[in-house]
Amino acid sequence: MSNNEQNIRIGLLGLGTVGQGVWKLLESRGDELALEIGARLVVAGVVVRDASRKREVDLPDGLLTEDPSGILEDPDVRIICELAGGTEDALLWTRQALTAGKTVVTANKALLCDHGEELMEMAEKHGGRLFFEASVAGGIPVIKALREGLVVNRFDRIYGILNGTSNYILTRMEREKAQFEAVLGDARDLGYVEADESLDLDGWDAAHKTVILAWLAHRKWISTDEMIVEGIRKVTLDDMQFSQEMGYRIKLIASIRLLGTDGRLALSVRPTLVPLDSLMADVSDAFNAVRLEADIAGPTVLIGRGAGQDPTASAVISDLVDAGRAQVNQTQSRSRAVREGDATELASLEDISQEYYIRLNVADRSGVLAEVAGAFSRSGISIATVIQRDHEEDRTASLVLATHACSEATLRSALEIIGREDSVLGDFLVCPILDPE
Amino acid sequence: MSNNEQNIRIGLLGLGTVGQGVWKLLESRGDELALEIGARLVVAGVVVRDASRKREVDLPDGLLTEDPSGILEDPDVRIICELAGGTEDALLWTRQALTAGKTVVTANKALLCDHGEELMEMAEKHGGRLFFEASVAGGIPVIKALREGLVVNRFDRIYGILNGTSNYILTRMEREKAQFEAVLGDARDLGYVEADESLDLDGWDAAHKTVILAWLAHRKWISTDEMIVEGIRKVTLDDMQFSQEMGYRIKLIASIRLLGTDGRLALSVRPTLVPLDSLMADVSDAFNAVRLEADIAGPTVLIGRGAGQDPTASAVISDLVDAGRAQVNQTQSRSRAVREGDATELASLEDISQEYYIRLNVADRSGVLAEVAGAFSRSGISIATVIQRDHEEDRTASLVLATHACSEATLRSALEIIGREDSVLGDFLVCPILDPE
Repeated sequence: MSNNEQNIRIGLLGLGTVGQGVWKLLESRGDELALEIGARLVVAGVVVRDASRKREVDLPDGLLTEDPSGILEDPDVRIICELAGGTEDALLWTRQALTAGKTVVTANKALLCDHGEELMEMAEKHGGRLFFEASVAGGIPVIKALREGLVVNRFDRIYGILNGTSNYILTRMEREKAQFEAVLGDARDLGYVEADESLDLDGWDAAHKTVILAWLAHRKWISTDEMIVEGIRKVTLDDMQFSQEMGYRIKLIASIRLLGTDGRLALSVRPTLVPLDSLMADVSDAFNAVRLEADIAGPTVLIGRGAGQDPTASAVISDLVDAGRAQVNQTQSRSRAVREGDATELASLEDISQEYYIRLNVADRSGVLAEVAGAFSRSGISIATVIQRDHEEDRTASLVLATHACSEATLRSALEIIGREDSVLGDFLVCPILDPE
Repeated sequence: MSNNEQNIRIGLLGLGTVGQGVWKLLESRGDELALEIGARLVVAGVVVRDASRKREVDLPDGLLTEDPSGILEDPDVRIICELAGGTEDALLWTRQALTAGKTVVTANKALLCDHGEELMEMAEKHGGRLFFEASVAGGIPVIKALREGLVVNRFDRIYGILNGTSNYILTRMEREKAQFEAVLGDARDLGYVEADESLDLDGWDAAHKTVILAWLAHRKWISTDEMIVEGIRKVTLDDMQFSQEMGYRIKLIASIRLLGTDGRLALSVRPTLVPLDSLMADVSDAFNAVRLEADIAGPTVLIGRGAGQDPTASAVISDLVDAGRAQVNQTQSRSRAVREGDATELASLEDISQEYYIRLNVADRSGVLAEVAGAFSRSGISIATVIQRDHEEDRTASLVLATHACSEATLRSALEIIGREDSVLGDFLVCPILDPE
């Protein structure tokens, strides 16, 4: 079939959970999408690894294929929707599509995080476009808000809850006083946990999304190696209880901040104490939230479902509509030049200054508090609050400290010294404390 | 000056608070906006009522004019930014601009609410466009979210806090146990209250915005005459106290619902009890919030500054950038055809069914509760909770009732009967109770 005014041919790479969601919406709401676009999106082919596999959706004969070349090489296919996942085939296919001047819509945050810079340049060079609303915060149109709705703003700080699975686990642990492992089992049963569990549990999924948001806000690609990334595995029910006593709740917070007068950029994903009366503390279960501190519009918070078939498919479709409109209008792709005021430098550990929550497990004997407090004091860290709770069963104690603001570098060297003390047992948890909103 | 590739000439109608904000941003961030658009927005003229008036911003000589015709008739001026307000001159000018095929960016919710249908048709007919992000919820990009980010979704329910001034007054009354009149005085001093105070205090400003959101979600223009519109004047500190005892907070909630299997549309703005543990209850001071119950993406909440120079100017600029890009790309304007599933019928008072909070002022004598309860019972309204509180100083009492779900029509006829009882004194307050999220 040749390209004509009425139809825009698209290729679907991948027909997993999100791919099937997109297919269903193109079927059920194709008419109203055609009205929005001024042309109909027609799926020219769907590339899968195993065409014989049973699926939730029934595709017309001949549409499924295991060979992507037919679709990628078809000049009449103008839009490629990459929902295959991973960074191997997906990278090769995305490169091939962009090099051919096609537009690519993707939900693949790992791909963007690792190769975004190359792919954006490729799109620009060959006149295609790269859309990726579904890669961050699922159904919440946060990328459109950053790119378009808040286009005139600069963002000193962006933070939020970007991984629904870890938020679900933390919410249920706290609500039901349930242990991490038990809730994790339920999350697995619900299909909430990625095959590579480390993505959800160690913060990497949120880190990928943080990198993408930071690029949108500051036009700089940061490697996850240049961020502090920590997941939720070390957070215990005791930590939740201690936090609550201090007026906070523990959330896995992704953060992008501009520090210092020259705006050095600091990215992190870590368990963080948020004030109990903040909006962020109320974002529960698998919901995501992003707070954009826009210098003109003011603080703007977006909350919604960050994952799952339907929310992600909703975001993919919104990109397909934008991509379709750009086809109809033959819109030129825009360059994403660095703007005045964009951050160019990364913050050092000395630049990062905030209050911290520290929970140490210590031997339950006299003098330990004095030892620890002395070590902090000698490092120049001032303590705001201390909670000590004895565990009689094993003669250990939890020693919880909230510091006044100090630098990450200072804190780390103090903790290295303290970690060497005989009385300090095993692992400890360090969480930044978020300022009140 | 003739139109060229580098510049897009725009006309500014009005240089009040928002107009000056827009001017300042075009000056200070013109370079980065030019990068975004691929062309520079150049102000060709600024129309004001009194060119000699002293203003916060200094304009180059010759830019200010009291005569709009030069700008409206200049074929090289492609975009008109209408920030004059009101529905008289603004209507004439907008009509003239659209008839000439120009694109209009406006923040004027009253204009859109009253004349949106005509103006949209005019834009479509003559190939121009009408942008109005700043007309609802100021700096929050809710119109873009509805139009684009959530384009594939249908919305069974949309509700939120759309008037910052009334939210500010309610927040301070509750927080400080301050009387309405005292807080209103402060709000006036802060410049929060419109010259026509009824817009803020009687719900009309929120009603205008509700009409615009309903059109975006359901492609139907509703008149404010067809809505239930009530402001915050009747809400007392006692009502706040009673609500809190019942687990709620009173907010002025704008609501758009589809009722029944055939989706009849019900719009309202009224003081509403929202659950204390809901996000909406935490939206305080002059902030706005909108909850979009999207059928595919799930519930999506947007919170931010709903008014003020900078947030509103941020939204105007985002429209100017979209309008500028459309100029650069010669984008065709899209028709806004009615889609399958769009609401066509309005709900009747019989269709509207919900729980209600009712506060009556009654004579403090025995038998009154029985009279009132009897009247509700005879009307078929079942009572869930009753609070009676005596005011010894004047031998009256507050009688507060929470009903189970009943129709608005049934409630009104019951209240008409009850209002005729000798024991029921003066005015009473009726608030819907919002379902838990």
